[in-house]
Amino acid sequence: MKGPVPCHLELGSSSFKFQQTQVANSSSSARSVVLTEPQKHPEELEFQFEDYMDTKAKIVNQALDDSVPLRHPLKIHEAMRYSLLAGGKRVRPILSIASCELVGGDEELVLPIACAVEMIHTMSLIHDDLPCMDNDDLRRGKPTNHKVFGEDTAVLAGDALLSLAFEHVATRSIQVVSSDRVVRAIAELGAAVGSEGLVAGQIVDIESEGRELNLSELEYIHLHKTAKLLEASVVCGVIMGGGNEMEVERLRRYARCVGLLFQVIDDILDVTKSSEELGKTAGKDLKSDKATYPKLMGLEKAKEFADALVVKAKEELSYFNGTKAAPLYHLANYIAYRQN
Amino acid sequence: MKGPVPCHLELGSSSFKFQQTQVANSSSSARSVVLTEPQKHPEELEFQFEDYMDTKAKIVNQALDDSVPLRHPLKIHEAMRYSLLAGGKRVRPILSIASCELVGGDEELVLPIACAVEMIHTMSLIHDDLPCMDNDDLRRGKPTNHKVFGEDTAVLAGDALLSLAFEHVATRSIQVVSSDRVVRAIAELGAAVGSEGLVAGQIVDIESEGRELNLSELEYIHLHKTAKLLEASVVCGVIMGGGNEMEVERLRRYARCVGLLFQVIDDILDVTKSSEELGKTAGKDLKSDKATYPKLMGLEKAKEFADALVVKAKEELSYFNGTKAAPLYHLANYIAYRQN
Repeated sequence: MKGPVPCHLELGSSSFKFQQTQVANSSSSARSVVLTEPQKHPEELEFQFEDYMDTKAKIVNQALDDSVPLRHPLKIHEAMRYSLLAGGKRVRPILSIASCELVGGDEELVLPIACAVEMIHTMSLIHDDLPCMDNDDLRRGKPTNHKVFGEDTAVLAGDALLSLAFEHVATRSIQVVSSDRVVRAIAELGAAVGSEGLVAGQIVDIESEGRELNLSELEYIHLHKTAKLLEASVVCGVIMGGGNEMEVERLRRYARCVGLLFQVIDDILDVTKSSEELGKTAGKDLKSDKATYPKLMGLEKAKEFADALVVKAKEELSYFNGTKAAPLYHLANYIAYRQN
Repeated sequence: MKGPVPCHLELGSSSFKFQQTQVANSSSSARSVVLTEPQKHPEELEFQFEDYMDTKAKIVNQALDDSVPLRHPLKIHEAMRYSLLAGGKRVRPILSIASCELVGGDEELVLPIACAVEMIHTMSLIHDDLPCMDNDDLRRGKPTNHKVFGEDTAVLAGDALLSLAFEHVATRSIQVVSSDRVVRAIAELGAAVGSEGLVAGQIVDIESEGRELNLSELEYIHLHKTAKLLEASVVCGVIMGGGNEMEVERLRRYARCVGLLFQVIDDILDVTKSSEELGKTAGKDLKSDKATYPKLMGLEKAKEFADALVVKAKEELSYFNGTKAAPLYHLANYIAYRQN
């Protein structure tokens, strides 16, 4: 399929739509099971992405550890720490840090926000895993929060993490940036979580169980459940770093593409990889007859959609200095070309 | 019992203690079943407390109604509105408004905060009622949120209300007060909800089930489960109104006394009133062998403690102009001398 890329990303509005019909320069038969990483630019070769991720994750982990000391009442702090410090790649906090640094801000300006987005993400996982929600016993190979601490404590640990996220920004960020920036970031975070953010995605997901979804409904769920918090992570990073409006909007669009990309790739991996390769049960979506991009678009179209999202995300970065944009560039690649 | 009032209210610290031994000028035999309202000062007679409460509650209800419009996704907004607009006296929002006005601020400066404290209170009720928590089917005579919308939606409605509380302040208060005040208020609200606030009280309450509590543990629970949010309601009102540090601290102490008073009176009513008089099942605490002030102190001492708390709360108000302080003065009376 050759030709222009007629994908209309209505970015900057809540009705983000991707009407993908065809993608340029994609010879799907020549590609690997998921997406094939294109040849590297010399600039990319010089950037040690894995080292970058490791270094930043360590800094984030230390800050998270410090943000919830083990104090009275012990049980709630143990429950909060259990899930908050359970590992993970720390993609959201690193997106915040990389975005802040991209617009010229120091890492210390953004660390409280980096912690806050991970607290919110952790809250959503704890509440999502509850028996009345997804009823999951395991999360990253460990028993879920309610399995260890009980359902009542798990509900409260989520509540405490959500409120701490806002409190943390209000008490810590204020020490390093202006109150105007703090208020703006809190408004972004609130919108990302609430009934038109993460919660909106979850409720539509719950309501759609047992019925056929169309592509626009599927996208609504992912843009809200996943992309909103990635978007807030990036945008809050830009705000903390003192980015201008154009930088905010470009990186907001970058984050939406990356957020949606994350889900499309997740769906593709589920049908193309074995359980061994994924480190979790493969084919789950297919078995549960869940709406996915490959199911609604077909596998090849889903891959083309993913390709287009990577291209679009990187386009937004082209405005910035290449060396400075390397972390976000590689984060998009990392999400697109991961094999599990 | 005559003599000085050796009650040590370590106010302004989280270890608020009341070591009550005896209360001056209280002839307990002469008092009614709960507390007898003392003769009114001429100033009090002029203040139409019921009109004041009605007027303010209407304003708050309208603002709450506006704060959660019924939009897509409908179900989550219906669930949020169901509990948020279910009535109630709106004590917390009115405390915010009265405190703001006491220090010279206009009502419009504090309305977003007034809504936020009610959103937080509503979230705590929805999550408290869940089957994994108190498992209550009824709240104010209506089926609880999860009974109407399902447990999953109830968890999410609570999450959305909690995050909306912060977002609402960050997007609305910022239109009427400085960002410094907004950030300070958000820090207060966060501390009131989190693992050293409301959630701390709930977790200690849960953990104490089935074992004997001492007075200090009981007070910890009530100071956190109930008083912390009342304190934040008042303090945020003072901050919005531009009160000085001394005003913040005096009214913080006032709010703690009133918050604790609320629980002591609740406990007393449970053992002294009939179900008909209360409009809910009386003697519940006694039946469930729950720790209460009458149980731990004896009924008369509990009444004396309540008396001392009213006196202390009003003492904090004596610094202010009597006419301006009338609403908070009457709110303390209202809580102390209610009969159900």
